[in-house]
Amino acid sequence: MMENKVFLSFIFYSTILILKMYVVAIITGQVRLRKKAFANPEDALRNGGMQFYRQDPDVERCRRAHRNDMENIFPFLFLGAIYSLLDPSPAVARIHFLIFCVGRIIHTIAYLLRLRAPTRSVAYSVAQLPCFSMALQILLATTPYW
Amino acid sequence: MMENKVFLSFIFYSTILILKMYVVAIITGQVRLRKKAFANPEDALRNGGMQFYRQDPDVERCRRAHRNDMENIFPFLFLGAIYSLLDPSPAVARIHFLIFCVGRIIHTIAYLLRLRAPTRSVAYSVAQLPCFSMALQILLATTPYW
Amino acid sequence: MMENKVFLSFIFYSTILILKMYVVAIITGQVRLRKKAFANPEDALRNGGMQFYRQDPDVERCRRAHRNDMENIFPFLFLGAIYSLLDPSPAVARIHFLIFCVGRIIHTIAYLLRLRAPTRSVAYSVAQLPCFSMALQILLATTPYW
Repeated sequence: MMENKVFLSFIFYSTILILKMYVVAIITGQVRLRKKAFANPEDALRNGGMQFYRQDPDVERCRRAHRNDMENIFPFLFLGAIYSLLDPSPAVARIHFLIFCVGRIIHTIAYLLRLRAPTRSVAYSVAQLPCFSMALQILLATTPYW
Repeated sequence: MMENKVFLSFIFYSTILILKMYVVAIITGQVRLRKKAFANPEDALRNGGMQFYRQDPDVERCRRAHRNDMENIFPFLFLGAIYSLLDPSPAVARIHFLIFCVGRIIHTIAYLLRLRAPTRSVAYSVAQLPCFSMALQILLATTPYW
Repeated sequence: MMENKVFLSFIFYSTILILKMYVVAIITGQVRLRKKAFANPEDALRNGGMQFYRQDPDVERCRRAHRNDMENIFPFLFLGAIYSLLDPSPAVARIHFLIFCVGRIIHTIAYLLRLRAPTRSVAYSVAQLPCFSMALQILLATTPYW
């Protein structure tokens, strides 16, 4: 597997996206501290008092971005790995990974910077195209084994 | 790995379930548009105005179904892959994957169509049985390497 | 892969953490029953009536712990698997996995037992260290293949 260049390319883009998710988590924590809005009483108590045990729209926005990442990037980690083992054209495979990676980064930027609709939805939809493509190719290759 | 028939069978069922999750995401978006209930102000503004920046019980139901999928299908993607490499009986392995796959599809149907309790919980519990079985077999095989 | 001792060690810790997540799910269900707080009308109807279709802070706490697990343990399942294939020192690799595993178990305990801040945050941060370390090593190894 570690000599399969398509797989190594997939790993590169996947790791970039996981680090991107970690950045969203860090931003969420920073927004919590700046807006003083904590999900747990023990956190609020440590940061000024129970009045800061509350929700905040900016924090919720970060959490929605993070959740949408989980819904979409985690399945990519599976589909991309299997697709890489199907011996695809390296150039075509790289286009799949690149479109997904760029689409998800734009999705996060559009979410956090609240870009005008439908920027975020378009980024989401474009990033789903390589996922559907990979899923269908995997199904075609494995249907005999159901 | 791509010559291991158990692994190929696992891939088939996993990809079906990932596509099923994508369908839940698409349904969520459709329900948001139909009920006019958007999670972001920018989406509401594009779809009629800020009064549609609101929650809706049908949307929340879709989101709970999707989240439950993440809690359970993603671990299966890991456990099933490793279990496939443990050289299990192909027939027994296929029963594991089939029970999980059917259980999760029924779980989604029960959630979205609000079937009477405990249909959904039973589907969830039955789908967890092969997961626990695979997890225990993996632990037995790898405990010497802790 | 199944003869790679680092990979087998990774599998062991990962499976422990997946079982830990299943335990959080079971606890959530138990707290729902004990506090009589159900996310779905059909569940409430089966358990005493629509007045129990409601949120509860203890249930929400369990759900936050579970979600944080998804945000962090699922990426570890990917990073740890790839890192294991990079031929790392077995002793160093095991330290990575052990720190993550212990950190995440303490995180869950701190969350569910509402230990005083910043116990939970420290456990989270310590568990992220091996993840960043693995992600950077993977990037270094795969950057030529972007």
